[in-house]
Amino acid sequence: MTGQDGIRVEDLRPGQVIALGSHTVTEAEIVEFARAWDPQDFHVDKELAAARAYGGLIASGIHTMAVYQRLCVDGVLRRLPVIAGKRLAETVFLRPVRPGDTLTGTMTVDAVEFDDRGRALVTSTGELVNDDGKPVFRTVVEAYMRVRDVSA
Amino acid sequence: MTGQDGIRVEDLRPGQVIALGSHTVTEAEIVEFARAWDPQDFHVDKELAAARAYGGLIASGIHTMAVYQRLCVDGVLRRLPVIAGKRLAETVFLRPVRPGDTLTGTMTVDAVEFDDRGRALVTSTGELVNDDGKPVFRTVVEAYMRVRDVSA
Repeated sequence: MTGQDGIRVEDLRPGQVIALGSHTVTEAEIVEFARAWDPQDFHVDKELAAARAYGGLIASGIHTMAVYQRLCVDGVLRRLPVIAGKRLAETVFLRPVRPGDTLTGTMTVDAVEFDDRGRALVTSTGELVNDDGKPVFRTVVEAYMRVRDVSA
Repeated sequence: MTGQDGIRVEDLRPGQVIALGSHTVTEAEIVEFARAWDPQDFHVDKELAAARAYGGLIASGIHTMAVYQRLCVDGVLRRLPVIAGKRLAETVFLRPVRPGDTLTGTMTVDAVEFDDRGRALVTSTGELVNDDGKPVFRTVVEAYMRVRDVSA
């Protein structure tokens, strides 16, 4: 069983690195996301943020995760038979994400474990780097995927 | 130094449980969030989702995290002198979140470690339970907070 365009879980190989493309985070997007979900002043108020530790607006960590997830869906998950996410083993926010930063993602396959229910637990490491190629975000994702259609 | 209404980091106690209030996740919110950030079919397409493992739409894990973050900001973070999030030691998605679910949050203080730069690293466990009181989401957050204004 495959996703829409057809990568089979069985074809994923530990060590495989999948390029996910880029997304530019604008000031408007930072403020809009944070107003809805993380309205701390250093995410939503430019003036107050200027006086804080980072000297200006920074993106919410949840927003940064959302950017990774979107790149991951467009870059690979749409083509894989995902059941659901199970766990993020670790998520680190390594550098601030600021207005105008272009984030580029990769997903590295760490492990594929098959069970006896027609599923695989796929562990992958996701990373976003900024315009300088420096990592801003890293997460280790465990997600269930279908190996074959057990309902068929 | 305190946040807006004034909880000092020094007043946080390991074991302290802070109630964060509730948020009802609607079908429209699930679809809107996922269209922007996690457009997998089981998050955005009711018909296709009905045929999948969970038998209907489920919220994106990132959306669930965003709900926790919003409850946490409104319930406590606004009043604390947060610098920035550093790391999520672990994040688990324990049960699906479905349209109409009311999620209720708590934040438990696990540890407060002071450094010599006027900061504290606060570790907390966040949890969301559903209408049945069953946990759907848990995360362990490490965030830096200001102890005193070192710039003054």
